[in-house]
Amino acid sequence: MMDRLVADRDTLVAVRGVRPGGDDAAESIARAAWSVLAEPGDTVAGALIEALGAVEALTLALGTSVPRTGAAVGSELAARALSEARARWRPRARPGDVRDALCRARDADARLILPGDECWPTAVDDLGPGRPSALWVRGDPELLVRTPRVAIVGARAATGYGEHVAAELAGDLAATGAVIVSGGAYGIDGAAHRAALGVEGATVAFLAGGVDRAYPAGHQRLLQRIADEGALVSEPPCGTAPTKWRFLARNRLIAALGHATVVVEAGWRSGSLNTAGHAATLGRPLGAVPGPVTSATSAGCHRLLREYDAQCVTSSAEVRELWGQSVAAPEDGAHDPDRVRLLDALSTRSRRTVDDLARRSGLATDRVLSLLGLLGLEQVVDVDEAGWRRVPTPAPR
Amino acid sequence: MMDRLVADRDTLVAVRGVRPGGDDAAESIARAAWSVLAEPGDTVAGALIEALGAVEALTLALGTSVPRTGAAVGSELAARALSEARARWRPRARPGDVRDALCRARDADARLILPGDECWPTAVDDLGPGRPSALWVRGDPELLVRTPRVAIVGARAATGYGEHVAAELAGDLAATGAVIVSGGAYGIDGAAHRAALGVEGATVAFLAGGVDRAYPAGHQRLLQRIADEGALVSEPPCGTAPTKWRFLARNRLIAALGHATVVVEAGWRSGSLNTAGHAATLGRPLGAVPGPVTSATSAGCHRLLREYDAQCVTSSAEVRELWGQSVAAPEDGAHDPDRVRLLDALSTRSRRTVDDLARRSGLATDRVLSLLGLLGLEQVVDVDEAGWRRVPTPAPR
Repeated sequence: MMDRLVADRDTLVAVRGVRPGGDDAAESIARAAWSVLAEPGDTVAGALIEALGAVEALTLALGTSVPRTGAAVGSELAARALSEARARWRPRARPGDVRDALCRARDADARLILPGDECWPTAVDDLGPGRPSALWVRGDPELLVRTPRVAIVGARAATGYGEHVAAELAGDLAATGAVIVSGGAYGIDGAAHRAALGVEGATVAFLAGGVDRAYPAGHQRLLQRIADEGALVSEPPCGTAPTKWRFLARNRLIAALGHATVVVEAGWRSGSLNTAGHAATLGRPLGAVPGPVTSATSAGCHRLLREYDAQCVTSSAEVRELWGQSVAAPEDGAHDPDRVRLLDALSTRSRRTVDDLARRSGLATDRVLSLLGLLGLEQVVDVDEAGWRRVPTPAPR
Repeated sequence: MMDRLVADRDTLVAVRGVRPGGDDAAESIARAAWSVLAEPGDTVAGALIEALGAVEALTLALGTSVPRTGAAVGSELAARALSEARARWRPRARPGDVRDALCRARDADARLILPGDECWPTAVDDLGPGRPSALWVRGDPELLVRTPRVAIVGARAATGYGEHVAAELAGDLAATGAVIVSGGAYGIDGAAHRAALGVEGATVAFLAGGVDRAYPAGHQRLLQRIADEGALVSEPPCGTAPTKWRFLARNRLIAALGHATVVVEAGWRSGSLNTAGHAATLGRPLGAVPGPVTSATSAGCHRLLREYDAQCVTSSAEVRELWGQSVAAPEDGAHDPDRVRLLDALSTRSRRTVDDLARRSGLATDRVLSLLGLLGLEQVVDVDEAGWRRVPTPAPR
């Protein structure tokens, strides 16, 4: 089965760095195959892979038998879903397609990232059976797990006001260590990526098509720069064209990856509201930048404030407040209970000495000092002669 | 005591239309006297009047004895408060001052409105002991009890954007029957009043000083026009100069009178936030108009969205939604349970026939038809060949 799909294991070595043969190679090829067979967000594929593993799921997908075991795929309903899904997948199971995807990835210097990899963003696992089975990355995959990450998205047909605000927010946040996640589109997305690159900050662009395809074409240079200095990521394999569906599916990854999502400008029916909806569904903090009520390009943001319970954000400090909670417990294994305890011990109103904080938090003085240093770099705390405090919301400029 | 304060009962006839002598005259004079003696929001005066009635309260206030009865004024703490309050009130108990206030009111064609009067706005009674003991009104006092009423306030140093939005909202709302309540100030207040007058709508200006004093001076013509076509209202008597304190105290009346308060533009520390705070404290719906985050004059509005849980409003329809609840049960006796039942029977999603609405509401068909006519005028409902529905939130223009 595997051999029918991919004949060139050497290409896999280039893309994944794995030795030919062995379980890892089989899993890699199976997941690469799944990214070719299934559209993004195919929850039947997700459930199947979850239940059986990618290799066995692939065998089942391209076979004809109904699985005998496994609660997730055992019911009559699941059997019908599987039968329908097979009808979707089969037409794509053409010999050479997976090999082509791998060859294109090799040529574009793209990597295949799988769940379990060090740089797999476990944040996207919150999507459940809709999570991607693999991600294709050009650039630095480590950015996918660096924290904090903030999604800054918005209208393609942005105004000068919107692009200005997007650039201010993204520049400030990137300069202080946040990874700016967006969709590589014209308008707000482009302004956010550019501002991050402009301060030599980190930025990740999720594309709706393959990472080897520059879309939109007018962003060819920007996307190349993101591949060189940040990361271009996509769920469909190299060579895939972007489609309406893939844009919508891509939006869920942006929302899932961000510790918070901020919509800077959006029309009443903007695609950015789709990203915002995913963020809200995933329980990610959602911010919206207000604008003139006379501007149609801010109508979607005002709608988010009214209907989606979005937080009104007007400055990078207010964006940082959004993710304050979620970054205290990042999901990439760097969870630090000491940090949570120290944050609990800090006040925004009264400044406290290191000794006082050590007492309140029950941490050693040295530990408090080193954590305060980190929190200071993140601008979560500041210090003067009276002591340390959590930085409160500043007045908008 | 009364005679020491007011010698000219004929003036009272001109101001109140009461016959000289009798309980009403005594109460009127006592309350006029209280408006001279006590600053707005003097809760000791309010509690005393509440407990003893205005006449006896005045006797006590200007005497030296400690009241023997009355839980509200009997405790040691209350006795101390009374002693301090007497020290505030005595310097103002000058012979002739109340007469002067009445004479000025007569000359300015101002009326004295008391609790219990038909046009007393019971909405301000929500202020408890801080409610005004009387109000001085130039113009049509009936506007104080007409519904719905919406407070539209904001920055004196408004931008063209803010004045434009204030005028759009106030004009739309006044044209459909809402009373526009504001503070007569430059900027947003003035734009709101002018727009209401421009559509021959109703508007009420609360002044911090006496209603015979045009403040600000540059609004002399506007305030005169409001007195002629709407209502100028103040708590301090004629001849009183506006002070910082009186501006703040005046703000609570604007918030109390409005079924909803909308802040159109406000700086980070704008006085409009004070009005908004009163509205929130009183449980009145609070709306804020967003603006560019780059505009310092919108920073207060964004603060209201973030910190006061204000609703983001971008159109007059969204302002109407704010007071939807409170106007369904107005406090001036015009409460109509049939209207509430019909509104319950209407849907925003599906259109319903008159027969269906009659069945759902349990109202007679004729009654349903006449109420639908009224609701149609208020733009609460609309109709097409499929039937009637509640108008949903439209897209912002």
